[in-house]
Amino acid sequence: MASAAQSNTVVGADYGDAQQVLDALRMTPWLKGLDEKTLRALTGISRVFRAAEGTLLCEEGEPADELFIVLDGQVAVLAQAANGTSAVVEVLDAGASIGLSSVLAGLPRLMTARVVRSSRLISVDGQSLQALAAREPSLVTVLLRAEAEDFKSLVQQVCDLKLRTTAQRLAVYLLSLSPEKTSNTTALRLPFDKRLLAARLGCRQENLSRAFAALRNLGVETHGARVILHDIARLRDYALPDEAMDKVTA
Amino acid sequence: MASAAQSNTVVGADYGDAQQVLDALRMTPWLKGLDEKTLRALTGISRVFRAAEGTLLCEEGEPADELFIVLDGQVAVLAQAANGTSAVVEVLDAGASIGLSSVLAGLPRLMTARVVRSSRLISVDGQSLQALAAREPSLVTVLLRAEAEDFKSLVQQVCDLKLRTTAQRLAVYLLSLSPEKTSNTTALRLPFDKRLLAARLGCRQENLSRAFAALRNLGVETHGARVILHDIARLRDYALPDEAMDKVTA
Repeated sequence: MASAAQSNTVVGADYGDAQQVLDALRMTPWLKGLDEKTLRALTGISRVFRAAEGTLLCEEGEPADELFIVLDGQVAVLAQAANGTSAVVEVLDAGASIGLSSVLAGLPRLMTARVVRSSRLISVDGQSLQALAAREPSLVTVLLRAEAEDFKSLVQQVCDLKLRTTAQRLAVYLLSLSPEKTSNTTALRLPFDKRLLAARLGCRQENLSRAFAALRNLGVETHGARVILHDIARLRDYALPDEAMDKVTA
Repeated sequence: MASAAQSNTVVGADYGDAQQVLDALRMTPWLKGLDEKTLRALTGISRVFRAAEGTLLCEEGEPADELFIVLDGQVAVLAQAANGTSAVVEVLDAGASIGLSSVLAGLPRLMTARVVRSSRLISVDGQSLQALAAREPSLVTVLLRAEAEDFKSLVQQVCDLKLRTTAQRLAVYLLSLSPEKTSNTTALRLPFDKRLLAARLGCRQENLSRAFAALRNLGVETHGARVILHDIARLRDYALPDEAMDKVTA
């Protein structure tokens, strides 16, 4: 978030051909339910573009005139407080959409979005999307489900912030990065810097350091961005990640 | 939340006449935009009922087959964690809806809702609402706006939890209860007990006591549920409530 370009224009936009856009839309998991005809109609109102690190995609309070979908890279969504500081609400990667509820409701944007790792994105024209949804009930279903999933993520985050300590939230996050399903140990890399990680977890950087120190006793070894989890089972017991929560509440 | 009835049935449901339901729908601020015809169609798929303190209106994970709207009273919405504890996501009062995103998307409920102060509610049949929305674009607009507002509340709460201390969050809450717009002092009553207040703020009860103690220096005097704010301006500076935030970010 350090040297962000204070510009609203996307870097290296390429209004690629329809096939490229169609392929990009097909890659988006939450659009899977759409029939071929609707997907092609959606292609006609979308474009694919690249945005460099630091690019400001959109700002809180602006009209929400386009829906973004992340194809690759990473985008932070933030909301600003009175004293000028921003809360990093979420760090999004492939598949995530930005601004869905605002675009559908025709209300101003709730969050600012900034590229934190060079990204490729889809932009869907907002007004055309509303018009297309009015004609295509299957698209409405898909959009409402995506919006409900976004809502669910926020509810889970509110719970996370209310029920868990910073160290537990860090443990949940590290476990979410771990692809390991069978072994009890794994090595991973933090996908973004510790300043952004602290902001995403909702703590100061010194508290993040303290949280890493607390996790050392649970077999979490760190060397800069490289992290080794020596005892996944124990860390899981300590953090109670949402997949375990899902099991219990199901 | 202590002696909640572990029952799914509403207490004293009265399937009142159409006029009562229509009046209740007219009282709901976010339905204001609806034309008379749509409002009458909505009346046909709604009922008004009373629910006593402790009533479990719905549970997380259940099919979202009805939308609730609070007419008066108070309802807590909660989400459960693996260790059996629940986070109070929000305490809702008149005008709020419960389960909108789940009902519209046809997905299982994200949250449990429990009446914390004897309430009167509207229940709208979920499937009929979806069918009506498919025929009435004006209803879709109203529902999407309400959903975006729900989304906004959650984003604001995430920011609140990430950027503010417990004492600041308490101050924001106390200021939100204050009807005083001109004078610098006011007296108010906490609308629910301190256990629920701690849960809503996302802290332990001992931290809530500490937060009240911290606010004493800022002119906050407490006698049980009765609270006197002696210096609203100073408290506001300390807490930076969202209305100030809105002004700055607008």
